[in-house]
Amino acid sequence: MTNTNTNTESTLKIIPLGGLHEIGKNTCIFEINDEIILLDAGLAFPSDEMHGINIVLPDMSYLRENTHKIKGMIVTHGHEDHIGGIPYHLKQFDIPVIYGPRLAMSLLEGKLQEAGVGERTELRKVLPREVVRIGKSFVVEFMRNTHSIADSFTVAIHTPVGLVIHTGDFKIDHTPVDGEYFDLHRLAEHGEQGVLCLISDSTNSEVPGFTPSERSVYPNLDRIIREAKGRVLVTTFASSVHRLNMLLEIAQKQGRVVSVVGRSMLNVIAQARTLGYIKCPDALFQPLHAVRHLPDEKVLILTTGSQGEPMSALTRISNCEHRDIKIRPGDTVVFSANPIPGNTIAVVNTIDRLMMQGANVVYGKDKGIHVSGHGCQEDQKLMIALTRPKFFLPVHGEHRMLVKHSQTAQSMGIPPENMVIIDNGNIVELSPEGIAIAGKVPSGIQLVDNSGIVHDNVMKERQQLAEDGVVTVAAAADGNGKLLAKPEVHLRGVVTPVDKALIQSLVQRRIETTLSDRWNEFARNFD
Amino acid sequence: MTNTNTNTESTLKIIPLGGLHEIGKNTCIFEINDEIILLDAGLAFPSDEMHGINIVLPDMSYLRENTHKIKGMIVTHGHEDHIGGIPYHLKQFDIPVIYGPRLAMSLLEGKLQEAGVGERTELRKVLPREVVRIGKSFVVEFMRNTHSIADSFTVAIHTPVGLVIHTGDFKIDHTPVDGEYFDLHRLAEHGEQGVLCLISDSTNSEVPGFTPSERSVYPNLDRIIREAKGRVLVTTFASSVHRLNMLLEIAQKQGRVVSVVGRSMLNVIAQARTLGYIKCPDALFQPLHAVRHLPDEKVLILTTGSQGEPMSALTRISNCEHRDIKIRPGDTVVFSANPIPGNTIAVVNTIDRLMMQGANVVYGKDKGIHVSGHGCQEDQKLMIALTRPKFFLPVHGEHRMLVKHSQTAQSMGIPPENMVIIDNGNIVELSPEGIAIAGKVPSGIQLVDNSGIVHDNVMKERQQLAEDGVVTVAAAADGNGKLLAKPEVHLRGVVTPVDKALIQSLVQRRIETTLSDRWNEFARNFD
Ligand SMILES: [Zn+2]
Ligand SMILES: [Zn+2]
Ligand SMILES: [Zn+2]
Ligand SMILES: [Zn+2]
Repeated sequence: MTNTNTNTESTLKIIPLGGLHEIGKNTCIFEINDEIILLDAGLAFPSDEMHGINIVLPDMSYLRENTHKIKGMIVTHGHEDHIGGIPYHLKQFDIPVIYGPRLAMSLLEGKLQEAGVGERTELRKVLPREVVRIGKSFVVEFMRNTHSIADSFTVAIHTPVGLVIHTGDFKIDHTPVDGEYFDLHRLAEHGEQGVLCLISDSTNSEVPGFTPSERSVYPNLDRIIREAKGRVLVTTFASSVHRLNMLLEIAQKQGRVVSVVGRSMLNVIAQARTLGYIKCPDALFQPLHAVRHLPDEKVLILTTGSQGEPMSALTRISNCEHRDIKIRPGDTVVFSANPIPGNTIAVVNTIDRLMMQGANVVYGKDKGIHVSGHGCQEDQKLMIALTRPKFFLPVHGEHRMLVKHSQTAQSMGIPPENMVIIDNGNIVELSPEGIAIAGKVPSGIQLVDNSGIVHDNVMKERQQLAEDGVVTVAAAADGNGKLLAKPEVHLRGVVTPVDKALIQSLVQRRIETTLSDRWNEFARNFD
Repeated sequence: MTNTNTNTESTLKIIPLGGLHEIGKNTCIFEINDEIILLDAGLAFPSDEMHGINIVLPDMSYLRENTHKIKGMIVTHGHEDHIGGIPYHLKQFDIPVIYGPRLAMSLLEGKLQEAGVGERTELRKVLPREVVRIGKSFVVEFMRNTHSIADSFTVAIHTPVGLVIHTGDFKIDHTPVDGEYFDLHRLAEHGEQGVLCLISDSTNSEVPGFTPSERSVYPNLDRIIREAKGRVLVTTFASSVHRLNMLLEIAQKQGRVVSVVGRSMLNVIAQARTLGYIKCPDALFQPLHAVRHLPDEKVLILTTGSQGEPMSALTRISNCEHRDIKIRPGDTVVFSANPIPGNTIAVVNTIDRLMMQGANVVYGKDKGIHVSGHGCQEDQKLMIALTRPKFFLPVHGEHRMLVKHSQTAQSMGIPPENMVIIDNGNIVELSPEGIAIAGKVPSGIQLVDNSGIVHDNVMKERQQLAEDGVVTVAAAADGNGKLLAKPEVHLRGVVTPVDKALIQSLVQRRIETTLSDRWNEFARNFD
């Protein structure tokens, strides 16, 4: 085993600040001997009742107070729920160095520059099987895994208490689109030598079986696009590099040129092409204005909006609000993504609006045009079987998913006392002898809107305004407590079962009564 | 065929005011020879962005303007999306008579009394195969069907242009829990004699196969409850009379007493027992305070909240906010209902909170503890096969469901020109020769909150308040345009990246500048 500083303390603290009891904002702290490393720092998207909020971050006060301990950070892959928080955190504290896969580091670099915090850290791209030392206490090895974004890692963290494996996000895909196989051999080697604790992705722990290979959607997408008589629009997650790769290959094979619509998808494709994760000729891509004059059956449009996001290209297209694209009969629109719970209504409304404009819309689970990037129960079992950990810590999931994942681990012989179900902010203490929850750090959320961080009480006020509206009254009184003019009453968001003039006069009478009461009281006191 | 007035006009107008491009607020008008009958008048529940709204109704202005034509109403069954709007509409116009099944009429009677509009109409309970004449133009026959609520009807409406069959909500359940079979024989007889138009339920038109019988959930519920070591809480839709019947039978068989929690479920059970749709001994039911002293394995609690509704009993229990019920380890909570899209997050959050308190929660499609009350593609085909309609009108569904249902009908030989895909407010003109959309009546929505109907612009204002908050400034100036005091600034729901004193002074400076500019302008004009 790689040597790490084994003096002083004998327990490793694992503190997840996000990613538990939710899917999103994955952020985890490892701390020992007054040294901290971070693993990922993602963002979450607001729920419907978070009015005017753009993104949600974990409360980072524990790290703000322990900045001096931070030795560095490791990133497993380039999804927003793993890197999206970093630019915001770097405004609050420095991170000396961030290690991660090439694609994630390229995407992150753009984000940091945009936020003006590029100088607050150093980004270092690592290759599979590369090993780095961070501080005195951590030695980290990166292992290729398979997931919906290219260039994704599982990490082995050597610590003074033993080896901890964090799976990152994974599925086990034996026929990966990019030919980059899961490094099961290194996992097995670690398992053979002894893994103290496995920290594993719980997203699909409620789903039996294996997750199908990403490649399984290829024949279905190929057939649907081949049978389309007119233009084809395909929407998927902007970061699904493998899916985009297959779609580009299909377009090329079938003689369609490709227009990409939507800023985030353009960005991912540009970065992935630079790094060689997407390989195709420049001529395949054409801007929208150039494809307008091509026959419909020669055009494929890749677009964001698979989740019905209000400002996305496809949603605007469905609302007839997109400047350059109008749906016409004969168009085929393919949803190569499942709606995330909470987005279902937005997605089906988008589908309905596209159909009403004459598009043939292809969607739904039975079409075989989407698979998950996260492993199901059998993938999770294989991970446990290969690593044979002493202790088990399910992460990346809502509470019932963590419980289900722990049951899977128990079915494979890990005793219940060797695992804990944790919540954001829990301090997990891990030693060679045991795993336990020992206290809690602040673990709330930070809401970010266009102007910065929004506090909780502001959200409560917004909710109240939304439910009741607001009444403002402007009144001027003289020194004798007499109204100088008719008070002005403004209503916004208020239901008026009576007409406004009546409300005006009711308010006026009330003010006059109040003023004269006060004046009498005042006068009496000076009697 | 029953004789109806065949003079004058030769087209029947069918005008749905709700229930299309949505699931909810089903409301349909049939009009001919200056006579109108209504079929159902439901409500819908607000979407997340409808702040402070309790229920959603269709715009009824067409009926308000044509009150004199209304001869009566028919009700197919007692679900809220079919009867929930009636008390509100009766405040705006009278309906001479309402015919419907006994359970729906009992539930409606309570609603009308509560709303104080019991005198505005006459409720008449009808039995299966009963035939009633409404006005000169309509003769309506009620036929038993099978659905998730007991006592549900498909109706045959004889009109001067021919026979129209409206399915109501249905599935085809050959083993109904209450032994009341679908009256397929009358349907077949009508099909043999000639059906001009079939108006049919599209809810599950995207789902292949047959909907399983309601009875199929019995063995699974029976086993889950038998295996539970402690208390059992079961949640389902309050109106699912068959499900409740099975649960009561299981409780009785296994020696558990039953406590019912939640106002709407108590109401449905009371009405259904009075009418004999639920049969069980009085002693089976016990109030909560009485079961508290019983052993846990002798208790079954039936509760509302299967959709994670914020104020429902189960949601309050999961939040530790229920006065009488606290979850303890050993409790089993069974979700005998699937989340309706849009409620998924509320439901899974409720499940998570119940689990965190130690409950064993049984949920999910793979458990066989819920089936739909609406027919899938094969049920829909059988309906078309038996009625053999000339024209086809899919209703009760979102746009893509209507499209899918029309494709099913086409696959059975009905030509595409013999069907129309309609939207709320469309006027469908039906004659023996054709079906077509001919114009539109007002078809917006009415939002109802605690104080009455909320207008659209109020909702926009509420949304804006929710996203931005509100700033109020109170300032007093003298006749020379000088401020008399420091202006008062109040912020609600506003993000303050700077501190409040700074804002105060910025506002003051701004007011002073504005006042002095105005004063100078004013003075100049009088120079
Ligand atoms: Zn993730
Ligand atoms: Zn991921
Ligand atoms: Zn219905
Ligand atoms: Zn119904």
